[in-house]
Amino acid sequence: MALPWRFWQSPRTSDPVYESIGEAMSELDLNLDASRARQQRLWNALAGAELDAIIVTQIEHIQYLIGPKFAWVHSPAAILFADGTATLIAPNEAPDAAAADEILTYEAQWLCTLRNDQRQACSDVLLQYLKSRGKLGKIGVEYSTFSLHLSQQLDATLIDVEPTLYQLRRKKDPDELARLKKAITGTERMYEVARDMIRPGVSELNVFNALQAAAVKEYGEMLTGAGNDYACGAKGGPPRDRLTQDGELYILDLGPAFRGYFADNCRTIAVNGKPTDEQQQTWEIVMQTFAHVTKTVRPGKSCKELFQEVVGILSAAPIGVFDHHLGHGIGLFPHEAPHLNSCWDDVFAEGDVFTVEPGIYDEKLRFGMRLENDYLVTADGVELLSDFPIGLT
Amino acid sequence: MALPWRFWQSPRTSDPVYESIGEAMSELDLNLDASRARQQRLWNALAGAELDAIIVTQIEHIQYLIGPKFAWVHSPAAILFADGTATLIAPNEAPDAAAADEILTYEAQWLCTLRNDQRQACSDVLLQYLKSRGKLGKIGVEYSTFSLHLSQQLDATLIDVEPTLYQLRRKKDPDELARLKKAITGTERMYEVARDMIRPGVSELNVFNALQAAAVKEYGEMLTGAGNDYACGAKGGPPRDRLTQDGELYILDLGPAFRGYFADNCRTIAVNGKPTDEQQQTWEIVMQTFAHVTKTVRPGKSCKELFQEVVGILSAAPIGVFDHHLGHGIGLFPHEAPHLNSCWDDVFAEGDVFTVEPGIYDEKLRFGMRLENDYLVTADGVELLSDFPIGLT
Repeated sequence: MALPWRFWQSPRTSDPVYESIGEAMSELDLNLDASRARQQRLWNALAGAELDAIIVTQIEHIQYLIGPKFAWVHSPAAILFADGTATLIAPNEAPDAAAADEILTYEAQWLCTLRNDQRQACSDVLLQYLKSRGKLGKIGVEYSTFSLHLSQQLDATLIDVEPTLYQLRRKKDPDELARLKKAITGTERMYEVARDMIRPGVSELNVFNALQAAAVKEYGEMLTGAGNDYACGAKGGPPRDRLTQDGELYILDLGPAFRGYFADNCRTIAVNGKPTDEQQQTWEIVMQTFAHVTKTVRPGKSCKELFQEVVGILSAAPIGVFDHHLGHGIGLFPHEAPHLNSCWDDVFAEGDVFTVEPGIYDEKLRFGMRLENDYLVTADGVELLSDFPIGLT
Repeated sequence: MALPWRFWQSPRTSDPVYESIGEAMSELDLNLDASRARQQRLWNALAGAELDAIIVTQIEHIQYLIGPKFAWVHSPAAILFADGTATLIAPNEAPDAAAADEILTYEAQWLCTLRNDQRQACSDVLLQYLKSRGKLGKIGVEYSTFSLHLSQQLDATLIDVEPTLYQLRRKKDPDELARLKKAITGTERMYEVARDMIRPGVSELNVFNALQAAAVKEYGEMLTGAGNDYACGAKGGPPRDRLTQDGELYILDLGPAFRGYFADNCRTIAVNGKPTDEQQQTWEIVMQTFAHVTKTVRPGKSCKELFQEVVGILSAAPIGVFDHHLGHGIGLFPHEAPHLNSCWDDVFAEGDVFTVEPGIYDEKLRFGMRLENDYLVTADGVELLSDFPIGLT
C-alpha cells in the first residue's frame, strides 16, 4: 500500500528533534529527554497504584509523553510499562523520532483513504502485542475515552490516570514553555495588526482573517488552534458578518495554538480610537488587577483568595459587572489548572503558566472590556509572558 | 454560576432552526425533522439487535442525530430510546433547538472555566437520569470512545453501533447536501483567489492565508475544518515558509468544512502560467477520468471496478505514477464510504457524495498533478458538484 502523503492539518508530524545525543536545534523542537522525564514523573505520581502499565490514546497525552503530535484524524496509542520502557503504536509508519523503545504501526489508511475503524485497528495491534508481554494485572488508562475494543478484551483492572495526567500537565517543562511563548508571540503580532486595522466599519470576519494570517506568518506554519473571541461590541463570540460601530469596544480574546500549546490573552480596543471617560476610567480600574498580581502572586498563594481580592478591586468600578473567572492555566488544553476561580481551591506553584483576565461589562461601556495577561510562576514571584501594549488605543 | 459566553470555535451553537412548524429559513439551517428521520433510520438499521437504547457521545453523531454541533472542548451525550424518544445532555445550557424530547445539562464550565473532568460530569448526569428510566438490558454505543465512567456503571450488554452509523452517514440527506454544497462553494472561491495570486515567488503560507480568508468570507463564519494540501512542487502537505518556483505545479487540494461538513476537491495550477508540453499532455490524460466517471457511474456500479478502469486510463501517461485511491465519500469526516479504492468492495448507491481524484506524479512534471471533482450519485447517474475551472492555468 502506498503511504499517505497527507499531513492532515498536523503541521509537525515530522518535528525537528532534539535528542540528548547531538546538539539542540531549537528550543521549539521535539525534546525526547523531556518526554522521557514526563513518563518518569507519571510513574512517580502513580507509585502507590502499583500499575503494570499505562495506556494512553488521547492525542495530547501521546504528545506529552512520547513527543510526536499526531493528527486528529488518527487513532494512535502508547503503552508505558512499569520497567520504564514505552511502546508507541503509530498510524501507518513510525515517526522520525519518539520517546519510545519500540514503535509498532497500525494501518490507518489504505491507499491513502482514512479508515473509519482506526481505533479498532490500532486496538487489534495493541492487543496482539500485549500477548507477547505477559500478564498485566493492573493498567492505568484515560477513562473518558478508553476504547471498548480494548477494555472488553483486557483481562485487567483498569485505573483512571486522567486526573493524574492533568495534575502533571500543570507544571510546564522548558520545552512546553518555549512553545507557549511562541504561541503568545503570535498573539502579539495579531494585536499589532488589529490596532492597525480596527476602525468603525470594519468587518469582524476581515479582522479574524487578518489576525489568523498574522499568527500563521509568525509561527511559519499552520496554527493547531484558532480561538477565541472576535465579536465586537459583545462580551465574546466568533466573528460575524457584521461591521464594527463607532463608540464600541472590541474585545479581542486570542487563543491560537502552536504545535498543540494554546496561548490565551486579551486586549480591548476602542473602535474609534477615542475611548469615553467612562471607558477609560474602567480601564484604569481593570489595570489595577495586574499590579496586584505582580505584587502578590508567588508559590503558595491561594488562587481563590486572589480571585476574591480582584473582585474587591473591580467592585470599585462605578458601572459594570465582573461575572466570570479571573483566569486559568494554559497548555495542551485551553483551560487547565491552576484555577483563579472561586469554584476551585488551587494554590499557585512554581512552573504554573496562567492567565489573568479581569473584565467589566455594561451597556454604557458598549459593552465592556476584558484585559488578559499570561504569567509564569517563578520561585519567588511571576514573570509576565505577554509584555506588549494593553491600552484601549 | 455565570453561563459561558465563549463559543469555542463552534460558530453555530445557536444555528437558525427549521422545524416542521413554521417556514424554512434556509436550507443551511438546522433541520430537526431530518435529524428525527435519521434517528428512525438508525433504529430501522439496528432492528435485529433488539436494543433498549443507543447512547452517542461523539460530537459528529450528536450533530447527525440531534442537530446542534457542539464544540470540541465539550463532552455532550445523547440517548435514543427504543420508544422513539431522545434525550440530550448538553454542556451548560440547553441549545435553542434540538431533535430531543428532553434536554438535561451538565456543568461543563464553572464561572466560564472549562472543566477537565467533563466526560465524567456528563456521565454522572446520564447515569442518574437512566435510573429513572428503568432497566436497560442492551445498549448500543460507539466502541471507539465510550467512556469507562459509563461502561463500568451500566449493568447492560453493550453493542457497537459505530459501523452502522458510518453506513447510514453514507447516504446524504438534503440538509447535509446543502451544507456540503456550501462547503464546496467555498473551494470555488479559494481557487479563484489562488489563480489570481499564484506566480513564481509566492509564499505557500500567504497562499494558505488568502485561501482560508476567501472561504471564511464565502461562508460568512469561521470554518470548522481547514485542510488539506498547500505545499507547492510536492504531492501534498501543509503550507511551508517556502516560495513557489518557476516551472513547478502547485497542487491545491482543498478541504474546508462548513458547519461540520467537509468539502474536498483539487486543482493543479502551473506556477508560471505556462505548463510544459509534458504537463499539458498529462493533464489531458488525467481529465479523461472525469469523462469516464460521468459516463459509467450510477447506482450499482462497483467502486473497485471504477478504480481499476481509471488505473487503465492513467497508465497511458508517458511518464509518472498513480499510486493512491481514486476517491472516497465526504461528509462529517474527511473520508467516508463509498471507497473508490481496491481495498474495499463498495458499490455506488443513490445519495452518495464522493470525490474522484486521479493524479500522476513524476519529477519531470515538477512534480505532478492531482485533479479532484465532487459528485452526487443520482437515480441514474451522477451530478457534478464542483463545476468550476479545472485547467492548469
